[in-house]
Amino acid sequence: MTAYETLEERFKEINALEHAAAILSWDEAAMMPPASGDARATSLATLAGVMHAKVTGTEIGDLIDTATDADEPLDRWQAANLREMTRRWRHATAIPVALVIASSRANSRCEQTWRRCRAENDWQTIAPLLSEVVNLARATATRLGESESLSPYDALMDKWEPGLRGSAVDSVFDDLKSFLPSFIDTAITRQRRSETLPLTGPFAVEKQKELALNLIGNLGFDMTRGRLDVSHHPFCGGVPDDTRITTRYSEDEFLNALMAVLHETGHALYQQGLPEKWRRQPVGDSLGMAIHESQSLLMEMQVCRSEGFLSYAAPVIRNALTVSAQDPAWSVGNLHQHCIHVENGYIRVHADELTYPLHVILRYEMEQALIGGEMSVEEIPEAWNHHMQSSFGLSTDGNFRDGCMQDVHWFAGIFGYFPCYTLGALTAAQLYTTATTDDDGIPDAVAKGNFKPLLNWLRANIHGQGRLMNADELIRKISGVPLDTRFFKEHARARYLND
Amino acid sequence: MTAYETLEERFKEINALEHAAAILSWDEAAMMPPASGDARATSLATLAGVMHAKVTGTEIGDLIDTATDADEPLDRWQAANLREMTRRWRHATAIPVALVIASSRANSRCEQTWRRCRAENDWQTIAPLLSEVVNLARATATRLGESESLSPYDALMDKWEPGLRGSAVDSVFDDLKSFLPSFIDTAITRQRRSETLPLTGPFAVEKQKELALNLIGNLGFDMTRGRLDVSHHPFCGGVPDDTRITTRYSEDEFLNALMAVLHETGHALYQQGLPEKWRRQPVGDSLGMAIHESQSLLMEMQVCRSEGFLSYAAPVIRNALTVSAQDPAWSVGNLHQHCIHVENGYIRVHADELTYPLHVILRYEMEQALIGGEMSVEEIPEAWNHHMQSSFGLSTDGNFRDGCMQDVHWFAGIFGYFPCYTLGALTAAQLYTTATTDDDGIPDAVAKGNFKPLLNWLRANIHGQGRLMNADELIRKISGVPLDTRFFKEHARARYLND
Repeated sequence: MTAYETLEERFKEINALEHAAAILSWDEAAMMPPASGDARATSLATLAGVMHAKVTGTEIGDLIDTATDADEPLDRWQAANLREMTRRWRHATAIPVALVIASSRANSRCEQTWRRCRAENDWQTIAPLLSEVVNLARATATRLGESESLSPYDALMDKWEPGLRGSAVDSVFDDLKSFLPSFIDTAITRQRRSETLPLTGPFAVEKQKELALNLIGNLGFDMTRGRLDVSHHPFCGGVPDDTRITTRYSEDEFLNALMAVLHETGHALYQQGLPEKWRRQPVGDSLGMAIHESQSLLMEMQVCRSEGFLSYAAPVIRNALTVSAQDPAWSVGNLHQHCIHVENGYIRVHADELTYPLHVILRYEMEQALIGGEMSVEEIPEAWNHHMQSSFGLSTDGNFRDGCMQDVHWFAGIFGYFPCYTLGALTAAQLYTTATTDDDGIPDAVAKGNFKPLLNWLRANIHGQGRLMNADELIRKISGVPLDTRFFKEHARARYLND
Repeated sequence: MTAYETLEERFKEINALEHAAAILSWDEAAMMPPASGDARATSLATLAGVMHAKVTGTEIGDLIDTATDADEPLDRWQAANLREMTRRWRHATAIPVALVIASSRANSRCEQTWRRCRAENDWQTIAPLLSEVVNLARATATRLGESESLSPYDALMDKWEPGLRGSAVDSVFDDLKSFLPSFIDTAITRQRRSETLPLTGPFAVEKQKELALNLIGNLGFDMTRGRLDVSHHPFCGGVPDDTRITTRYSEDEFLNALMAVLHETGHALYQQGLPEKWRRQPVGDSLGMAIHESQSLLMEMQVCRSEGFLSYAAPVIRNALTVSAQDPAWSVGNLHQHCIHVENGYIRVHADELTYPLHVILRYEMEQALIGGEMSVEEIPEAWNHHMQSSFGLSTDGNFRDGCMQDVHWFAGIFGYFPCYTLGALTAAQLYTTATTDDDGIPDAVAKGNFKPLLNWLRANIHGQGRLMNADELIRKISGVPLDTRFFKEHARARYLND
C-alpha cells in the first residue's frame, strides 16, 4: 500500500468518527432530554479529542511527507485529496489537544444552557459561559493564526471558507453598506403602494410538516437518506449518507418555518449530492460555508421566494393548509408579496434578503472585536443595541432573546462564520444567474414544479465537485468571472424595483 | 496520580465513547433513514475498534498490574471497580481487534437487513448474512473460551451474566421443563371457565403513547433524562444519564405495546438508578443481563400484570383510550384476565410468563448447537419448526417472520443472552417476594398508584449497587438464599390456580 493509500484508510476512519459526532450533535439539538447535557458534552469532547489525536498523530505527518515526495502519480482528485489532508493536518497540529477538548466541552455546555436561557431572556446566566467560550475561541484563533500567518480573526474565517480574508470581506461589505440603506428605503416605500393581505392561522404543526415534506421531496431531498425534525434553531446536520434538517414551527405563522426548511434543503441537497466516490475523504467534503450558504440561499432566495416557484407552490400550500383558493390572501401574488416583504426587524433568521446583510455586518464587526480582544462579553448587549439602533432604528435594550441571544453561533463557539451568509447570498445570485443562462428552461420548469433541470445543473457544477477547487476557482469556472456584487444588485433591482 | 486513579481516568474516557455508541445504536433502530445503514455500520465498527484499542492498550495492562500490586488502600467500591476493569481488559484482550471490527460491521449490516427482510418474510436474503454473523460469533466465543477456560457457549453467557454456566442453566431449565407443560395445560383449562371479553379498538397511536408516558412517569421513569420512541423491536438503550426506551404500536391492540413499555421501564429504572458517583466507571454499570431482565420482569410480570396494579391503572387506561367505565370489557377483572392470559403462541415477546420459558429453552438449545457448530444457519427454519411443534403444537413451516426471524438477537450477533430472560423471571419472583416481605406496604401502595416504596426498595437493594457484587451474591444478600425456582412456582400457583 502506498503512503497515499494508507492516508485514505486513515481519513476514512476519521470520517467514520465524524459521522458519530455529527449524528450526536444533531441528537443533542433535536432529541436529547434536557438533563442529559453533561454526559453528552463529555462524550462529544472525548470524541473530538480522539479525532484530533488521529489527525495529528506523527504517523499522518510522516505519511503526508512521503506521499508528497513520492513518485507515484496521483490523479486530479487524489492530488486535491492529499492537499486537503495536508490542510486538515496543518490546522489540527496548530491547536493543542487540551484546547480542543476544553473548547468542545465549553461549547457544548454553553449551547445547552443557551437553549434554556434564551427562552427565559436570561443573559446573566449565560454571560460567564459565553466568556469562557470566547476566551477559548480567541486562544484557538491565536494559535491557528500563528501557524497560518494570519490575524486571529482571519484564521477563523479561513477555517470556514479557505482563502477568505477580512480585507476582501471589508470591501464587499463596504459596497453593500453604501448600496443597501437607500435601496431598502426605496423598496419599503414602493411596497407600501399595494396592500399585503394577512395569512391567518392557526396552522396545525402536523399539516405544516406534511407540506414541508411534500415540497422538499419534490425539490430532490432524498428521504431514504435523510430526516426532517424540530430544533430550537433550524439547521442542516448529519452526513451525506444521512442528512438531517430541522426547523421550528409556530401555529400562528407558517411561512417562516417553511422557508427555513427550504433554506436548509439547499444545504441538504449540496450534502446529499457530494461525489459518491469521495464522500468519505477530505476532498469529497463540501467546500467552505460561503459556498454552502450559496446553496441554501440559491434555493430559498433565488428560487423559492420567486413568483415562478409560488405559481407552482401556492396550490400545494393551499391544499396542505386547507385554505380556499378563492381567498385573495392565498393568491400567488399575495403570497409572493409576503415572500419578498422587506422590513427592519430584530431577527436575522427571519430577515428578508435586503436587510439580512446588515444583520450580518453587525455580527461581523462585533465578533472581530470580540476575537481581537477589543470587546468583552459584558459589553455585547449594549453594543448590540447600539448597532441595531443605527442600522434599523430598533432598540434591543433588555431584550436579549431577540437581540444578542437570538443566534446559536457564538454560544456554540462558532466565530468567523457570519460573513459566509452574505458572501453566500452574493454567490447565490451569481450562480443562479449563470444557471438560468446555461439552461434557460430552468425558470419555466421551476414554475411547473419540476426541479430536475436545476438540480442536474447544481449536481454537475457544484455538488459533485466536492473540494476539488476552492471557492474562488469554482465561481470563476462556472460564471467566467470572480465574485461580483453586481449580480445581487441586479437581482434586487429586478425583484424590488420591478413594477 | 496513582495507577488506580489513572485507570479511572482512562475508563471514564472509554465510558464517554460507549455513550456515543449507545446513542448511535438507539438512533439506528429508532431514527435512522432506511438507506443510511452502510455509513452507520462503518461508524459503529470504527468506534468499536477505537474502544477496543483503548481497553487493550498495553498501558491499561501495566496500570492494572501496578494498581493490583500497589500498597495504597482501595475502598470496597474502588476494589470492585479494579476487579471489573481487570475483567473488561481480560475479555477484550482475548479477542483480536480485527475480529471486533468485523463482528461490529457484520452485525450492523445483518440487523439492518433483518428489519426489511422480516417484514417481507424473506429468509433467503438474510440467511447468508446471518451465517457470517454466526461464524464471527463462534470465532469470538472460541477465543474468549480459550482465555477464560470455558466452553465457547459458556464464554458467551459469561459475557452477559458473569459466572453463568450451562450446567447451572440446564438444571434450572430441566426443572421448568418438568413443571411447566402440565401446569400450562391446567392453567389453560381453568381459564376457559370464565369468558374473557375482547378489548375492541381501534386505539389511536397518539393516545397509546400518552397513556404510556403517564404510566411510566408515575412508575418513576425520569423524562428529563430519557425518551420514549418507536422501533421495530422494543428495547431499552442509551446510558444512565440519557435512557431511551422504545416500543411498537398497533391500532388494533394496545396491551402488547403498553406491556412492552412497562417491561422496558423496568430496565430503564435500573439504568437510571445506577449509583450516581460510579456510573461512568465499570463498577457503576448494571450487573449481568439476568439481573437486568429481573428488573424488567419484576416490573412487568410481578407488578404490572397484577390485579392490584390494574385496580389503579384501569381508570387511567379507560380515560386515556376514552372508553366507558360501564363497559364490562374494561373492568379491572377483565383487564386482569387479558394480562394473565395463557396461550401457546408463536411470538416470544408476546408470550405470557408461563409459556415464555419454553420459547427461551428452544432458543437456548438452538444457539448452543449453532455456536457449538452442530447446527448450520440453513438448518434453523426446520429445527425451529420442529421445536415449535413439540413445545406448542404450532407449525412455523415457511412462516419465518413469526418463526426464526422474529427476534433481533441473533441477527445483531447476540448469542448466550436468551437464558437470561428466564433466569430473570425466576429472579424477579424471588426478589419481589422478598421486597413485599421486607415492606409489606408495597402491594397496597402499588394498588393506589404509589410506586415510591417499591422504587425505594429497588434503588437501595439493587439499582444503587451497580456491580459491587455478582448476581449470585446479590440474590443471596437480598433474599437470604441462592436462586430457587420455588418462588416462581409459588407465584404461578397463586396467580393461575387461585379461584
